[in-house]
Amino acid sequence: MTIYEEGLGANAANYTPLTPADFLERSAAIWPNKVAVIHGDRQVVYREFRRRSRCLASALVRCGIGRGDVVSIIAPNTPAMLEAHYGVIMAGAVLNALNYRLDAESIAFILGHGGARLVLVDRAFAPLMQDALALMETPPVVIGIDDPLTTEGTVLGVDYESFLAEGDATDDWQRPTGEWDSLALNYTSGTTGNPKGVMFHHRGGFLSAMGNAVAFGLEPSSRYLWTLPLFHCNGWTFPWAVTAVGGTHVCLRGVEAAEIFASIAVHRVSHMCAAPIVLNMLVHAPDAVKRRIDHRVRIATGGAAPPSAVIEGMEQLGFEVTHLYGLTETYGPSGLCAWPPEWDDLDLTSRAARMARQGVGYPTVEGFRVVNPQTGFDVLRDGATVGEIWLRGNTVMKGYLKNRAASDEAFAGGWFHSGDLAVMHPDGYAEIKDRSKDIIISGGENISSLEVEEVLYKHPQIMEAAVVARPDATWGETPCAFVTMVPGQKGALDEAAVIAWCRDNLAHYKAPRRVVFQDLPKTSTGKIQKFVLREQARAIE
Amino acid sequence: MTIYEEGLGANAANYTPLTPADFLERSAAIWPNKVAVIHGDRQVVYREFRRRSRCLASALVRCGIGRGDVVSIIAPNTPAMLEAHYGVIMAGAVLNALNYRLDAESIAFILGHGGARLVLVDRAFAPLMQDALALMETPPVVIGIDDPLTTEGTVLGVDYESFLAEGDATDDWQRPTGEWDSLALNYTSGTTGNPKGVMFHHRGGFLSAMGNAVAFGLEPSSRYLWTLPLFHCNGWTFPWAVTAVGGTHVCLRGVEAAEIFASIAVHRVSHMCAAPIVLNMLVHAPDAVKRRIDHRVRIATGGAAPPSAVIEGMEQLGFEVTHLYGLTETYGPSGLCAWPPEWDDLDLTSRAARMARQGVGYPTVEGFRVVNPQTGFDVLRDGATVGEIWLRGNTVMKGYLKNRAASDEAFAGGWFHSGDLAVMHPDGYAEIKDRSKDIIISGGENISSLEVEEVLYKHPQIMEAAVVARPDATWGETPCAFVTMVPGQKGALDEAAVIAWCRDNLAHYKAPRRVVFQDLPKTSTGKIQKFVLREQARAIE
Repeated sequence: MTIYEEGLGANAANYTPLTPADFLERSAAIWPNKVAVIHGDRQVVYREFRRRSRCLASALVRCGIGRGDVVSIIAPNTPAMLEAHYGVIMAGAVLNALNYRLDAESIAFILGHGGARLVLVDRAFAPLMQDALALMETPPVVIGIDDPLTTEGTVLGVDYESFLAEGDATDDWQRPTGEWDSLALNYTSGTTGNPKGVMFHHRGGFLSAMGNAVAFGLEPSSRYLWTLPLFHCNGWTFPWAVTAVGGTHVCLRGVEAAEIFASIAVHRVSHMCAAPIVLNMLVHAPDAVKRRIDHRVRIATGGAAPPSAVIEGMEQLGFEVTHLYGLTETYGPSGLCAWPPEWDDLDLTSRAARMARQGVGYPTVEGFRVVNPQTGFDVLRDGATVGEIWLRGNTVMKGYLKNRAASDEAFAGGWFHSGDLAVMHPDGYAEIKDRSKDIIISGGENISSLEVEEVLYKHPQIMEAAVVARPDATWGETPCAFVTMVPGQKGALDEAAVIAWCRDNLAHYKAPRRVVFQDLPKTSTGKIQKFVLREQARAIE
Repeated sequence: MTIYEEGLGANAANYTPLTPADFLERSAAIWPNKVAVIHGDRQVVYREFRRRSRCLASALVRCGIGRGDVVSIIAPNTPAMLEAHYGVIMAGAVLNALNYRLDAESIAFILGHGGARLVLVDRAFAPLMQDALALMETPPVVIGIDDPLTTEGTVLGVDYESFLAEGDATDDWQRPTGEWDSLALNYTSGTTGNPKGVMFHHRGGFLSAMGNAVAFGLEPSSRYLWTLPLFHCNGWTFPWAVTAVGGTHVCLRGVEAAEIFASIAVHRVSHMCAAPIVLNMLVHAPDAVKRRIDHRVRIATGGAAPPSAVIEGMEQLGFEVTHLYGLTETYGPSGLCAWPPEWDDLDLTSRAARMARQGVGYPTVEGFRVVNPQTGFDVLRDGATVGEIWLRGNTVMKGYLKNRAASDEAFAGGWFHSGDLAVMHPDGYAEIKDRSKDIIISGGENISSLEVEEVLYKHPQIMEAAVVARPDATWGETPCAFVTMVPGQKGALDEAAVIAWCRDNLAHYKAPRRVVFQDLPKTSTGKIQKFVLREQARAIE
């Protein structure tokens, strides 16, 4: 240490691990009486949002949940789900928000793999969770959330409100011991059979939220509508971003056009996020529920590029669309199609073509490139040469839980390999052309083709199967299966029977919509040529 | 390490030291042709801003400037000053921006104490720098900046443009090896003895800039006018914040009302920062140069509370005033008077009283309290009990360079002791009553000089006022007022009239016993130099 560093080290006054938990503490201190959360007729002010979250943290600690323990939740976008985004992490625990569209087997796998010690269950998902728990040898403790806005299902285990009452909001909350401490665990539908557990840290949660606040223009007057599922990489970290600026969360149990339009009007919503399928739904909503927006509403979309007809429709309704890009592995958004003013003057077709670009890196992302994966060099900026999007920075995951091989592969060479195949335009904006990982994105949900194939392969009369995406006007993509029968069994199954088999063994949304019986095209080394099948799927009437 | 942490460590893909240097790289990549810097008729696009900054970094490295070396600059708010905020730190060096209103002795002290290896000198400050260098045994290398907007002074040493030409923009820049690496060194104008060198790190520079972007609502369309000196804690970190969002910097050599109003109109300025004294100057500018603002202009002020008459005047001109709070030790702003919508409905007097509050901590600040320094406990939230503002968080300095005793004192107990005496209002907003050294103790009663000044500012014929303690055989101290009259009103008031005004509007014991009519001595940042006035007060018969 030189004389220039002597006495200039870290201490309690000038260093603290970054954590998104601080956002709630701060906003509750500044705006105790401001509405933090709206849910139906219920309005929760910041003081109360903080009190309830701190009670949850305290109750978890008092029942033995400690640092690094995983706490799962299955719930729609309700106040309890938002409270979990603070209460769980303020207990020093790791939040695992479950995709409620999964089947019981997948949920049981995730609870077991993540080692969940406790799970919070919205009453509507009690039947699904009961099926999942029945599959587990050592199921977690169950807390049931009785949301007054639904009568579906039942309240499992200990009632959430009683559980909160066990906690004391004045207990100290558990600050992370370091900003690398685990914050949240989100499972992706990977290409291998089982989903992979993407681990976030407090540092990334804080920085991602700040990046969202800056990139999406959040401010204290913002009113954010929860159209995006909170289980999607923690709602793209917006539970933390909206709270960071002292904005208002507007909850939404289901994604339904009439309620969305009504919420926007009644609550003067200013910001929302959603998959392109939701935008499509809004555009095609019946005239009776559609409303022309008469105030500024910014909607961020991502996961797939919004089609131009959808952009046009949204603009006509009065929405201002922003296209974000990201993956679960990057805390949700890590790129955006930043909109230069000169694009305003383009005609709609050109504007839509620009809007379809994934764009450029977030201010919190260090590197965002399109790379030739063989050479490691950037592809030409010609808008034509395809490469892979590589990212690096502080909002890239810690890694995949208990899966060093997958982590090492994802981080090879010191960059995160997104698996998204893209071109780089001359202006430095990336645009995805294809996915290398055979993921089918249907209605905003990722479907692993390999997982569907696994189920098909289990059918005693099916010999070979390959599943690819088929373009779909409503869902973006749907799975299309190509199947070869066991010799002698040709004609023993029809399309409906195969679909029924899949629906019996998978979440329904993952089942193929179309099934084609034929021999599969293969390379000389015996690999199935999916690109040939994709062409075929596209041509199916 | 548990199985839950195995394989989840930091690597090049998911960890990078935070640094504000990345903001320029990113904005230049996204908006290469967007105007980054405006200076008179010259417009510099982001590609060029980056190219020149990278040339500076390269030229510094090539002439032997290495990691941790200090590079000083003395310049007004010009493009070279902005380039230094990137070029120097991208060389791995530490930026030391000098206050050009200091005398040669102070500058020589700072250059020697900081160990500056090179100094960049705007031609207007060549005479001052020559005097300073003559006092040094081993003066630094000198580079002279020939700003075309001035003919003052001379170009010292190697010409800046020739120096840049020695560098190569394609050379790798020096990323910090860790985010604790030193970024900038700013000397405070201590009131006693030698100035202290406040050391910033890359982590704090990044976070402070993000905090400013969020707190002050910066976005890509923002056009930021450089009324605040860049040497004042690196322009409150706005060189980094404005660049982070891809906004436009509008330079300004001097702080002069006509040019400010013209710049705002011509360049459609959206954001600016300035000390209250500059706001006062704008309010009292001649009608010939004043312009009613017809677009949204947000002005952040700090360093002292803006008097209510000034707030009223600014609002009448069309400005939207935000009150920030901070010190050099906290990278500039670390608190703000966040404005709840319900305050909009208050009358002007009440609004101004609210606006005078220093408010609440930034989203990047962990703790912001008003504390009884004897007990370490928070003072009552009664708006009356005076304590000291204590802060902690990642935007608190590393410490004072080569001054462990002062650092230890500032950080005692794990909090940064601001030295600002404040009350905490019931709503959690802090309000400064005085610097500890500005409190006047008269007959055992504390008198806030700010409170007396506030009354003086309300007098229609008084433009500026400062109140200090004057030693008194009977009372210990009594308040002594220094007053500047509104132009054209010189001689309109006498001492007795001013004292009578105060007695009509204050507890009698708080009224000044003596009033002096004169121009007020100011620091380079527009702060009134109370230590000079204290000397004067002491000498009054």
